Amino acid sequence: MPDFSPGLEGVVAAETEVSEVDGANGRLIYRGGYLIEDLAPVATFEEVAYLLWHGELPTTAQLDALKKQMAEARHLTAAARGALDAADPSVNPMDILRTVVSAQGASKGLPAPTLEQAIALTAVFPTIVAAAWRKAQGHQPIEPREGLGHAANLLWMMDGKEPAVERARWVEMYLVLLADHGLNASTFAARVIASTGSDLTSCVVGAIGALKGPAHGGATFAARTMLDKIGSADKAEKWLGEAHARGERFAGFGHRVYRTYDPRAKILRDLASIESPDLHRTAARTEEVALQILHEAHPERPNATNVDFWASVVLTGADIPKELFTCMFATSRVSGWTAHVLEALKDLRIIRPASVWIGPEPGKKPLPIANR
Amino acid sequence: MPDFSPGLEGVVAAETEVSEVDGANGRLIYRGGYLIEDLAPVATFEEVAYLLWHGELPTTAQLDALKKQMAEARHLTAAARGALDAADPSVNPMDILRTVVSAQGASKGLPAPTLEQAIALTAVFPTIVAAAWRKAQGHQPIEPREGLGHAANLLWMMDGKEPAVERARWVEMYLVLLADHGLNASTFAARVIASTGSDLTSCVVGAIGALKGPAHGGATFAARTMLDKIGSADKAEKWLGEAHARGERFAGFGHRVYRTYDPRAKILRDLASIESPDLHRTAARTEEVALQILHEAHPERPNATNVDFWASVVLTGADIPKELFTCMFATSRVSGWTAHVLEALKDLRIIRPASVWIGPEPGKKPLPIANR
Repeated sequence: MPDFSPGLEGVVAAETEVSEVDGANGRLIYRGGYLIEDLAPVATFEEVAYLLWHGELPTTAQLDALKKQMAEARHLTAAARGALDAADPSVNPMDILRTVVSAQGASKGLPAPTLEQAIALTAVFPTIVAAAWRKAQGHQPIEPREGLGHAANLLWMMDGKEPAVERARWVEMYLVLLADHGLNASTFAARVIASTGSDLTSCVVGAIGALKGPAHGGATFAARTMLDKIGSADKAEKWLGEAHARGERFAGFGHRVYRTYDPRAKILRDLASIESPDLHRTAARTEEVALQILHEAHPERPNATNVDFWASVVLTGADIPKELFTCMFATSRVSGWTAHVLEALKDLRIIRPASVWIGPEPGKKPLPIANR
Repeated sequence: MPDFSPGLEGVVAAETEVSEVDGANGRLIYRGGYLIEDLAPVATFEEVAYLLWHGELPTTAQLDALKKQMAEARHLTAAARGALDAADPSVNPMDILRTVVSAQGASKGLPAPTLEQAIALTAVFPTIVAAAWRKAQGHQPIEPREGLGHAANLLWMMDGKEPAVERARWVEMYLVLLADHGLNASTFAARVIASTGSDLTSCVVGAIGALKGPAHGGATFAARTMLDKIGSADKAEKWLGEAHARGERFAGFGHRVYRTYDPRAKILRDLASIESPDLHRTAARTEEVALQILHEAHPERPNATNVDFWASVVLTGADIPKELFTCMFATSRVSGWTAHVLEALKDLRIIRPASVWIGPEPGKKPLPIANR
């Protein structure tokens, strides 16, 4: 029996050309070999989604066709609308997203995943997220608006007014940066589900569930919550010192793969200094102190800031309510989930690892069946 | 970089005491060390679920308490009822199950998985499955009936009449046999989702999606479809020979782990000879010919009959419509999924494997952004 690697650390579970986390060199590479720092300043979310699905960036005509297709797929089916209307608006919006995406993608039989479905599922996320938010605020959902891009339309459906160009661009940059990231846990969940020959909606719904956890997509919310508790730059040292003494983990630090500064965190940090200067000041001091404490406590670890830490500042600066942070992550990552599933289809083999039995020796205990 | 094992074959992903598939010896061991052939003839589904959750079989008082708790949890929430009512009754019932379970388990915040939730989720599956079936037939759902066990109540909600004792027992035996099976793909999907710190409903909803695939829970339907096409024992040889010549796979044969006859398949085969003698005759001849063809074509493989093949005959004999076969599998396996998640909580570590980049060298291609 091979050695047990908890969390499958270092175990290769797939060959992929969708993205690569080059942790040793602090690089994130998207399909086609593009570095995230080259894409982020210029690419739209639709371009990046196209890249992840097709392997190359779209021409103007291809991009226009994709935008049209996505705009048409923004509307909910009757089943999805019914599930949304019946949902308790006070539950976690990720639970509403999980349920309504499941209803939206329900189909007869067992259709094999297609690019059309990938586009349709990705297109509809903002509709659900914005509607869940508005219902939680006691408002009616707002219909999507044609002619607005993916990011701008999301903000439109949240507020009912056209967003400032800058704000839409900040959100778009966030969506570009988070679109894919190797075999992260939610993407891996999607690939496990795909491996049985299941449908694309099932893969995406499972991935939404995996993203929810605080060790994954939920970390952005946790980072913001920590920054809220700290309050201001001058209180960071005291707060973090006390939290560390209590044995608490600092939200937004540490990553399985990166051994240097996460390139996305760097881009978001720079962006945050422009769009959210006050919170940036608190966050920068928090980062400084947190890394110092972590380095002293665990000099053997890399202890880098992760993307969630600075994403929480950027999303705050773009006026995204923190209750929606994980939904925003999902709105971006669904492009990567679907690209991975489409890739996995090319050589489908059921993902079925082994386990080690740690129970008692079989067949020895008498059978005390009570009800006979 | 370690070797790549496609499908994680032979890679140990967890230590577990929930169940063990001893493939070399053809044994399935449930928690506590019980062999499936000892449990199946005598245990109820509730007893087995209790065993998987607690590690020991219940006393009479414990069993009564569990039955009461499950009976109370059979009712849908308003959100779940709304999602069910809005669903198109003609879609795959697994899609309705996925959506309605997601709605039923929606909650505020991010609750850690508990035994109470495991019980509640397991208890509600028959309500959803039976309602989806009745709606597909153009009938109204039927309320659960107190005093009936898990299996009998499922049949009650499907038909609106109390099932024959024998029939309920056949279904129960099926539910006992399928309740857990090591790190199968759906259970592994649930554990991947749990590993991020997500909630139990997310784990179960992801597992439902994984189970749908024809390489996993969907295989029972595929086996029955094949038997339907064959039609009768005397046609098996001709049909299978021609299908093999066309390069088709035989549904219900082969398994990643078993190297001998699946012990569940043996129990179901024996049961089928009593409860479904006609289809048993066709299936037995089909098995004989299929194994002969497979042994000749691939003498190096074990080529054993798997559980899905005989499960399809047993479920048919119990008058379960084949459209519900995968839902029946889910109704059983949710007990195992939840037991695995509760076990995984004891030592939570994010499941985040590595991947191998097979794309082009990074940072070399020019960036042809179309929209600027």
